[in-house]
Amino acid sequence: MTIADVARRASVSRQTVSNVLNSPGLVREETRERVRQAVEELGYRVNQAARRMRTGRSRLLAVRIEQTQDGMNVFDRFLHGLTRSAAKAGYRVILYTADDDRSEIATFDDLLGAYEPDAFVLTSTHYGDVRTSWLAERELAFVTFGRPWGSPEGDAHPWVDVDGAAGTAAATRHLLDAGHRRIGFIGWPEGSGVGDDRRNGWTRALEDAGPTTHPKLEDASLMRRANLQDAGGLERRTDGSAAEGEAAARELIAAGATALVCVSDSVALGALQAGPVPVIGFDDTPVAAAIGLTSLSQPLSDAAARCVRVLTRLLDDDSPDKPDHVLLEPSLVIRRTA
Amino acid sequence: MTIADVARRASVSRQTVSNVLNSPGLVREETRERVRQAVEELGYRVNQAARRMRTGRSRLLAVRIEQTQDGMNVFDRFLHGLTRSAAKAGYRVILYTADDDRSEIATFDDLLGAYEPDAFVLTSTHYGDVRTSWLAERELAFVTFGRPWGSPEGDAHPWVDVDGAAGTAAATRHLLDAGHRRIGFIGWPEGSGVGDDRRNGWTRALEDAGPTTHPKLEDASLMRRANLQDAGGLERRTDGSAAEGEAAARELIAAGATALVCVSDSVALGALQAGPVPVIGFDDTPVAAAIGLTSLSQPLSDAAARCVRVLTRLLDDDSPDKPDHVLLEPSLVIRRTA
Repeated sequence: MTIADVARRASVSRQTVSNVLNSPGLVREETRERVRQAVEELGYRVNQAARRMRTGRSRLLAVRIEQTQDGMNVFDRFLHGLTRSAAKAGYRVILYTADDDRSEIATFDDLLGAYEPDAFVLTSTHYGDVRTSWLAERELAFVTFGRPWGSPEGDAHPWVDVDGAAGTAAATRHLLDAGHRRIGFIGWPEGSGVGDDRRNGWTRALEDAGPTTHPKLEDASLMRRANLQDAGGLERRTDGSAAEGEAAARELIAAGATALVCVSDSVALGALQAGPVPVIGFDDTPVAAAIGLTSLSQPLSDAAARCVRVLTRLLDDDSPDKPDHVLLEPSLVIRRTA
Repeated sequence: MTIADVARRASVSRQTVSNVLNSPGLVREETRERVRQAVEELGYRVNQAARRMRTGRSRLLAVRIEQTQDGMNVFDRFLHGLTRSAAKAGYRVILYTADDDRSEIATFDDLLGAYEPDAFVLTSTHYGDVRTSWLAERELAFVTFGRPWGSPEGDAHPWVDVDGAAGTAAATRHLLDAGHRRIGFIGWPEGSGVGDDRRNGWTRALEDAGPTTHPKLEDASLMRRANLQDAGGLERRTDGSAAEGEAAARELIAAGATALVCVSDSVALGALQAGPVPVIGFDDTPVAAAIGLTSLSQPLSDAAARCVRVLTRLLDDDSPDKPDHVLLEPSLVIRRTA
C-alpha cells in the first residue's frame, strides 16, 4: 500500500496526497476529504515520516543506556519496563550513550536535529546536573528518573524516584528488631544525592528508635541524640567498590558494629568478606539473589511506567499546573545475610 | 531555523522548499539549485522527517530488549556496545519487547509501519526460528547475533556469533591441564542450538585429549572413544536454573566427576553448592565476578560492532555476493573456582 494507491483511488496526483498529509492547508477542503476517505477505505497506514511532518510528533522517547564498572546495577530492568510501557502508550524508546553531562547535551542536540524525539528520560541525576536546565531552557519535554538534587530549578520539572531513605530506614529497623543496637552504615562519598539520601534513612531510623544503647537515659530527645552520636562513629564512606566495602566493614566491626547497612550491593558484597555480621545491600541485583544477600528492591517496572505516564500527560497537554513528582517505596527482600 | 527561513532566502514558497526536500522531481532544476544553495548558506539542518521522505532512510536499527528470569545475563553489555557502534556509524537503536517469535513478528510489522527501521538486529536465534524467514521474504535488512540453528535457509542471511564450542573446549582443556580426567558437563535440554554447541566443545576436547583414563590403550582412536564413553556418563541436562545445576552436580560428583564445565553461570552457581570440585561457568556475568567463578567471557562489544558493520555494508549496497558470517572466540576468565 503506497501513496500511489491512495492517489489512484481518490483520482488525484501523488503530490496532492502528499500535500494532504504534510500541508493540508494547501489543499481544497473537497479534495482533502476525498483523499482522507481513500486513506480510510484502503486502510493505508500513513508512514511515520508523513505523520511526523503533519503532527510534529516522532513518537520517540530518548534515554541513555548506562554501563557501570562491575555490572552490578539494575538499569536493564528499568529500560525493559520503559520499553514495554512506552509501547503500550504508542511510543518507542531510542537509545544513546554518553560519558558525561556535556557529551550528553551534545547528543541531545544531535538527536533533536536528526530524530526529533518527543521527550527525554534522564537517569542518574546528581548535584550540578546541567542537563535539566539545558532541556528546560529549550522548553523540551522530559522527566528525570531521580530527584533534582540541589538543582537551582528545584522542583520545577517532573520527576519519578524511589525513596532511598525509606529503604535504608526499613533495613535499619529490621536490624533493630533483630536486637542489634550498634548498626553501622557504609556509604558513598558525601555529595552524592542518592548516597546521602540512603544515609539519611539510616540516621532517621536510629533517631526514631526507642531505648537502645542508653537505656538509663529517660529523656527521649537525649536518647535520640545519644543513639545518633553512637552511630556517628559507625559510618564509613567508600568509592562504592567491594574492596573498599570490605575494608570499611572491618573498621566498623572493630569499632563495635554488630550489623551493617550498605549503600549498594557492591559495597555489601565486600562487607560480607569482613566477618560474620548481618549485612543488608541496596538494589537487589542478580548478585544479591545469587549469594543470598538481603537487599532493598526498587520497583523499577512501576517507576518506568510512571515516567511514561508523566511524559504522555505532558505531551498531551493534559498536565496539571504543577509538574508531576512521584516518589515510590522500595521493599526489603530478606535473604540469608540479615 | 525553519523551512520558512529557507523559503525567504531562496525567494520561493514554503511548499516549494518542502517539494525540493520531499519530491525534488516536481521542481525545476533552477529553483531546486536556488533552494539547495539557501539550505547550505543558512546551515539549515534538514529534519529527519524530511530527510527520510527524500532518502527512504530512517537511520534506525531495531532490536529487542530481553529480560531473563534470574537476571544473570550479559545482554545489557551487547546493547550498550550496539548503541555505541551504531551512533558512530550514524544510526540509533530503537527498542521493542516481545514474548515470543509470533509477537516479535507482529512488532516488526508495527515498527515498519510506524518507524521504518532500516534494519533489524535479532538475538536469541533458535531451532524453528520463524523470524528470519519473515524478514527475508520481505527483503528487509537484518543480521542475527547468533547462528541460524537448523534454519532451512541455512547460511543465507548474515550473522555474527560467538563460538561456544571453542569456549567449552578451552574450559575442558584447562581442567585436563590441571590433571582432571573425569570432567562432567551440565547443560541445557537437547535441541537448544547454543546449548548443544557449548556441549560439543566439551566432547571435542575430551576426544582430542591425549592419554587420559585409559593409559594402557595405545591406539589413539580407541583411546579417544574410551574417553568419550567415560564422559557419556558424566553429562546432565537441566532447565538452566541454579537449583537443577546443584542437583546435577551432586549426581555427577557421585558418579565420579572431579571437575565440572557448565553451560551457564546460573547452572555453575548451583553446581558450586554441591561440593568442593572445580567449576567453570559461561558468560562471565557480574555474578561470576562477584563470587570468583571461573567463566567464559563473550566479546560482546566486538560482536555488537561487527553486527553494525555487517548492516552498514548491507545498507550501503557494498555487500559481497555472500552474506557476512562472523564467528568470534570467547576467552576464559580464570578466577577462584577452577
